[in-house]
Amino acid sequence: MILTVTLNAALDVTYLVDRLVPHASHRVDTAYERAGGKGVNVARVLAALGHPVVVTGLAGGPTGSALRGELHTAGLRDELTLVAGDSRRTVTVVSREDGDATVFNQSGPRVAPDEWAAFTARYVQLLSGAAVVVLSGSLPPGLPSDAYGRLVSLAATAGAATVLDTSGPALPAALHARPDVVKPNAAELAAVTGRQDIAAGAAALRALGARAVVASRGPDGMHAVTADGSWRAVPPEQLDGNPTGAGDACVAAIAAGLAAGTPWPHLLREAVALSAAAVPCPVAGDFDRDVYHRFRTTTLVEEVHAPRIHR
Amino acid sequence: MILTVTLNAALDVTYLVDRLVPHASHRVDTAYERAGGKGVNVARVLAALGHPVVVTGLAGGPTGSALRGELHTAGLRDELTLVAGDSRRTVTVVSREDGDATVFNQSGPRVAPDEWAAFTARYVQLLSGAAVVVLSGSLPPGLPSDAYGRLVSLAATAGAATVLDTSGPALPAALHARPDVVKPNAAELAAVTGRQDIAAGAAALRALGARAVVASRGPDGMHAVTADGSWRAVPPEQLDGNPTGAGDACVAAIAAGLAAGTPWPHLLREAVALSAAAVPCPVAGDFDRDVYHRFRTTTLVEEVHAPRIHR
Repeated sequence: MILTVTLNAALDVTYLVDRLVPHASHRVDTAYERAGGKGVNVARVLAALGHPVVVTGLAGGPTGSALRGELHTAGLRDELTLVAGDSRRTVTVVSREDGDATVFNQSGPRVAPDEWAAFTARYVQLLSGAAVVVLSGSLPPGLPSDAYGRLVSLAATAGAATVLDTSGPALPAALHARPDVVKPNAAELAAVTGRQDIAAGAAALRALGARAVVASRGPDGMHAVTADGSWRAVPPEQLDGNPTGAGDACVAAIAAGLAAGTPWPHLLREAVALSAAAVPCPVAGDFDRDVYHRFRTTTLVEEVHAPRIHR
Repeated sequence: MILTVTLNAALDVTYLVDRLVPHASHRVDTAYERAGGKGVNVARVLAALGHPVVVTGLAGGPTGSALRGELHTAGLRDELTLVAGDSRRTVTVVSREDGDATVFNQSGPRVAPDEWAAFTARYVQLLSGAAVVVLSGSLPPGLPSDAYGRLVSLAATAGAATVLDTSGPALPAALHARPDVVKPNAAELAAVTGRQDIAAGAAALRALGARAVVASRGPDGMHAVTADGSWRAVPPEQLDGNPTGAGDACVAAIAAGLAAGTPWPHLLREAVALSAAAVPCPVAGDFDRDVYHRFRTTTLVEEVHAPRIHR
């Protein structure tokens, strides 16, 4: 089983408007609501691919009830821990005119120490059935800054592999625990390491403890730096759409690959194909099966040999 | 008692962002929630002025529960009728940079015929204690197009005066029932009557059944056309701020004036002063007491004599 952790689960709300005009009043005739947060999106992709998956994390209040109801409707196994605060919403305003999305992310409720303790106790129980743990998204207020580091250590003790997809201070604070894969995008990698070069940034994260780094470069594909070697994969064509869910689809492919023991070049091809397949879909967690199957055979993977350092 | 009717009650959510950038992702660090819909805002102003006021209308679902909880916290008497659908939210994104507001209005849940019947039965009971009824805002889906006309007729039968503040097709559809005061703004008046001139537009609404028309002209004040004469009132100075709540404050002043039997010139001065006092406040339903007291003595009211028609 793959366990996805979403400490800041959300109700994702999508508003359709004709056109977004700053400072104007807009009539929203269509609004969609579904459970979100990056770990929930990863679980949705994994479930659609037929992988056994469990959703855990933190949710509460009427918004938490609404998001759990939607998880149930979607057939995802909900093992979220209840908190007293009301879960956050994200509002995405999609303009019919150009399909572009404008996103408003609330920060989430403050988590009390006893709620965090209750979560970790439940998490340890769930680890007994988990081959891979996915840790995705931002930390809500109130959690220790190395929350992800603790969860990585607990997973390692239980024998589960870990994939970490977060940004900002939560990322470096977790690396001492040696997560198996860290998946920043190029901008996050540069922000955390101060290195614009992907290989140099990945090396910096590995020096801090990450066992492998898969850096996503948007339409330019992905770059994996691992103990077994480095590979680059580039999608065969560019697709129009919404890249919001591409990162979560990539994480789903990495988690599935770790669970199956897939070799890195093949795993990276799957990650590029599944990411690309998310782009034509307007909502994170969905992907286009035709694109996925086309790209998983046509994406090229090349090994990258580190330049020899001249002393 | 003044009864305010909000058939499409809402939970008004305000998001503070540094700057609204279309197609970007925004971190919302501050979010406020409070009960809304125009009738609720009117009730808030009346309660702050010390008038006995009751809130009725339609609300339901988890969003309805949240808005009723906030009404309770605010000390407003809640006589909303429950519906099965989830009440709408409005999201107002306020930019810290310039204070400007961008608004997203959901359309509200569909109301079933038996829910409308349950509301009207409760409304008739509440009318027995009401001197004035305020009917504000849009009609939710599922209601008859002349819903406001029926409520005006029931109020007249019970001996209560009526103030109607709505726009679009719901406005002309209600006029046959002869509401005591209709309060369009200049743009709504022009849209409904096809007349750009305020006096001509007001005359058209009166010809359709409105007993009096108070047209708001934003910073240029207000124009009242009544059976007793016509008056114009202009605020003594312009204020910076958010005009969102000015119309609801104006309706509150009209309702209070009708309840007290205030003569038109004095009522119009109060309406201008209370409207202006809402402008410095970021949230509809609030007003600045200092501005209100300053403007209620300095606002000039002049009688308007209709031009003699040459044949």
